[in-house]
Amino acid sequence: MTREIAVVLVSGGLDSAVSAAVAAASHELAFLHLNYGQRTERRELQAFHDLADHFRVTRRLIVDMAHLKQIGGSSLTDEGLPVEQADLARTGVPTSYVPFRNAQILAIAVSWGEVIGAKKVFIGAVEEDSSGYPDCRAEFFEAFNRVITLGTKPGSGLEIVTPVIALKKHEIVREGDRLGVPFHLTWSCYQNEEKACGVCDSCALRLRGFQKAGLPDPIPYETQPRYK
Amino acid sequence: MTREIAVVLVSGGLDSAVSAAVAAASHELAFLHLNYGQRTERRELQAFHDLADHFRVTRRLIVDMAHLKQIGGSSLTDEGLPVEQADLARTGVPTSYVPFRNAQILAIAVSWGEVIGAKKVFIGAVEEDSSGYPDCRAEFFEAFNRVITLGTKPGSGLEIVTPVIALKKHEIVREGDRLGVPFHLTWSCYQNEEKACGVCDSCALRLRGFQKAGLPDPIPYETQPRYK
Repeated sequence: MTREIAVVLVSGGLDSAVSAAVAAASHELAFLHLNYGQRTERRELQAFHDLADHFRVTRRLIVDMAHLKQIGGSSLTDEGLPVEQADLARTGVPTSYVPFRNAQILAIAVSWGEVIGAKKVFIGAVEEDSSGYPDCRAEFFEAFNRVITLGTKPGSGLEIVTPVIALKKHEIVREGDRLGVPFHLTWSCYQNEEKACGVCDSCALRLRGFQKAGLPDPIPYETQPRYK
Repeated sequence: MTREIAVVLVSGGLDSAVSAAVAAASHELAFLHLNYGQRTERRELQAFHDLADHFRVTRRLIVDMAHLKQIGGSSLTDEGLPVEQADLARTGVPTSYVPFRNAQILAIAVSWGEVIGAKKVFIGAVEEDSSGYPDCRAEFFEAFNRVITLGTKPGSGLEIVTPVIALKKHEIVREGDRLGVPFHLTWSCYQNEEKACGVCDSCALRLRGFQKAGLPDPIPYETQPRYK
């Protein structure tokens, strides 16, 4: 029986790798990666291809969203703004937030999905651990599914799936471990491309996840603080 | 009193020019244009700048969506597919449809709008005359506004405005005439850059609009059939 196609948004990080593994259990995979002028663009793209090779995915699309840098407003793309060091107790929207970025990413994924006949778009968004990004919440994705139903050809049947949205990072690590996700191929650091910095928001969330899960993180770090 | 900022999506065509004129009555304007590898890209960009000069808009953003060509699936960007000649009685989705393109465009406009502190995004979508594109319907934009509320920073207050969505093309022409829109600066043809072809969907809708409004269309045409 032919499997239905799923587009998987693969940044190259932990959450997207686990989402890909979940999708792989039931779908034929198509991997989508976005470059947007982030500091670690080259390293993330390598992780994307390493993961695609691992999952034997031939349908790969890499989209250049260089305009996010033109739009600015985020420390991920605007070199005038510093990358904040982790403060996992901080509330509010962090400077690494690119306004409404997930809507742009989802829209691209849905366009591609409609062309290749996909029925699902998997995205590894995480509500609880996601640093307060407003476009990482379950209700945002539910609202977006309504837009898809209304904005694609009648009968496209496409919908967004967020397999890890309700999980905490350590639960994602455990789920990935259970599914045999090759953690050593993933990359999460916002700051560095050789050794992960260990102190940016993304590193902090990842390290805390592995620490709470009681599993070793196989990628190299400059420093590995203990996070609560 | 300082006016609130409105992002206006300006393709350079009739509908966006009239939408800009509506927005200009109440807002400070910021003009956004998208290049997406369409055949008439250069000509549309010229119309964008001509209109921006006319409305004295200094805040201009041009975003390259070259990936729409990678994604394909539309005669506007895929040179393997012919541009259909007009058949205004045709039903269904035409080949010029780029899947879910408006969602991508709106997401970019909202991202930019959030960064520059805009409160509105004006788009010249037209429901009745718009060739059956599913992402040109009022309910699509209403659903998108819900996504904006949920996906932008709390209190951003941003929303999509569609000032011509319920109008027929001849009503848009009349409204533009009333508002003093410089029709001679606009461009609508999907096929040509020097003289409008007069026979593609977009030319046919435009010409029929001027004909029904009883007004001359000031741009040059190769041929100007009479449309019913």
